Amino acid sequence: MTITLYDLAGAEAERRFSPFCWRTKMALAHKGLAVETVPWRFTEKDKLPQPNAGRVPVIVDGDRVVHDSTAIADYLEERYPDRPSLFGPGRGLTRFVQNWTETVLQAGLVRLVVFDIYRHVAPQDRDYFRRSREERLHMTLEDFVKDREAGLPAFRASLDPLRRTVERQNFVAGDAPAYADYIVFGAFQWARAISDFELLATDDPVRAWRGRMLDLHGGLARRAPAYGS
Amino acid sequence: MTITLYDLAGAEAERRFSPFCWRTKMALAHKGLAVETVPWRFTEKDKLPQPNAGRVPVIVDGDRVVHDSTAIADYLEERYPDRPSLFGPGRGLTRFVQNWTETVLQAGLVRLVVFDIYRHVAPQDRDYFRRSREERLHMTLEDFVKDREAGLPAFRASLDPLRRTVERQNFVAGDAPAYADYIVFGAFQWARAISDFELLATDDPVRAWRGRMLDLHGGLARRAPAYGS
Repeated sequence: MTITLYDLAGAEAERRFSPFCWRTKMALAHKGLAVETVPWRFTEKDKLPQPNAGRVPVIVDGDRVVHDSTAIADYLEERYPDRPSLFGPGRGLTRFVQNWTETVLQAGLVRLVVFDIYRHVAPQDRDYFRRSREERLHMTLEDFVKDREAGLPAFRASLDPLRRTVERQNFVAGDAPAYADYIVFGAFQWARAISDFELLATDDPVRAWRGRMLDLHGGLARRAPAYGS
Repeated sequence: MTITLYDLAGAEAERRFSPFCWRTKMALAHKGLAVETVPWRFTEKDKLPQPNAGRVPVIVDGDRVVHDSTAIADYLEERYPDRPSLFGPGRGLTRFVQNWTETVLQAGLVRLVVFDIYRHVAPQDRDYFRRSREERLHMTLEDFVKDREAGLPAFRASLDPLRRTVERQNFVAGDAPAYADYIVFGAFQWARAISDFELLATDDPVRAWRGRMLDLHGGLARRAPAYGS
């Protein structure tokens, strides 16, 4: 049976520009499901089938109405399990989390903790550490870390993708932890081992997730020597 | 057999702070594998087993030496397939990609294309669109988009996690596209449908990935009316 999709249109009926509707259209194609789209305009709230939240995408599949692109993806995966999976295995996506961790999280953290690393490396490593890092940073460690307090709000804001994720599920990888969690956690554990600088507000969902990570595997990470909380 | 892990140590041998070694330690615990760690300092390049790249983690598992945390994770998953998977199913991780898309990518794009959306929505939607968006943005659309050229370098830099991912694998989800790709792509298709503003440099790996996305499912997205390339 053909699925009906209410799809945001521009001045021309064929100009379809909603990013959320595009997610759904690609997902329907991925599953090989036939679809008929109905052009819809922002002001046509009354034309949507019930239930809806006044926004598109909304799909009608037989007698089922499903709205919200995420709910639609979950619905399609459950309703059509024999067609190609929408989510696939986690290995490729773990790479995305890794690349976010290395380009955003670790790059942000280094400014907050690099001087503490310098203070706490083995005495015989100190000169090597300063020289190699200053070459990479093109400035002295002291210049690099000054005003680190001022950088804290931007650092915390940069955690939004992580924060939203662990606010809604227990771990980055879902209900159970996986390597993606360990990648992100490694960065926090690095900071914790070497620095007492307070990275996270007490009510930050990221902090609650970090607590769950510290408890894993019999408290393996929590037992490790640390300056941070 | 116990695996040996060369693990970065600070001034005290027990202070272990490498984020990459923490990934590996958590991964070994996840797999339930016994490990003995050897504290290692930055300047002890000669003490690592061969082959290595002068950095830790390096593991020795029987007669196998594996270095680089990513290579170690892949090795453990292949060598110990009957133990809990390190990567898991992709659904939970798809949420992370979604949250990155909505807080970073779409938030960055809106500044570049929102005025073009205004120009191209249906005439009856125009007042609604301006009013609802200006309330959300706390300024006029005109003020919001001025100097959008000046914001382009920061926007492009914000794509680094995506760029690194699709530089190394064909799709966000790995060798084959999955819903995570459609989420990210939806944002680009939104921009393309409604704006001719050039978001991506011609040699950007993100642009090559977008081309692969446009070709999927018989060119479904490429055929759609668009102002962008």
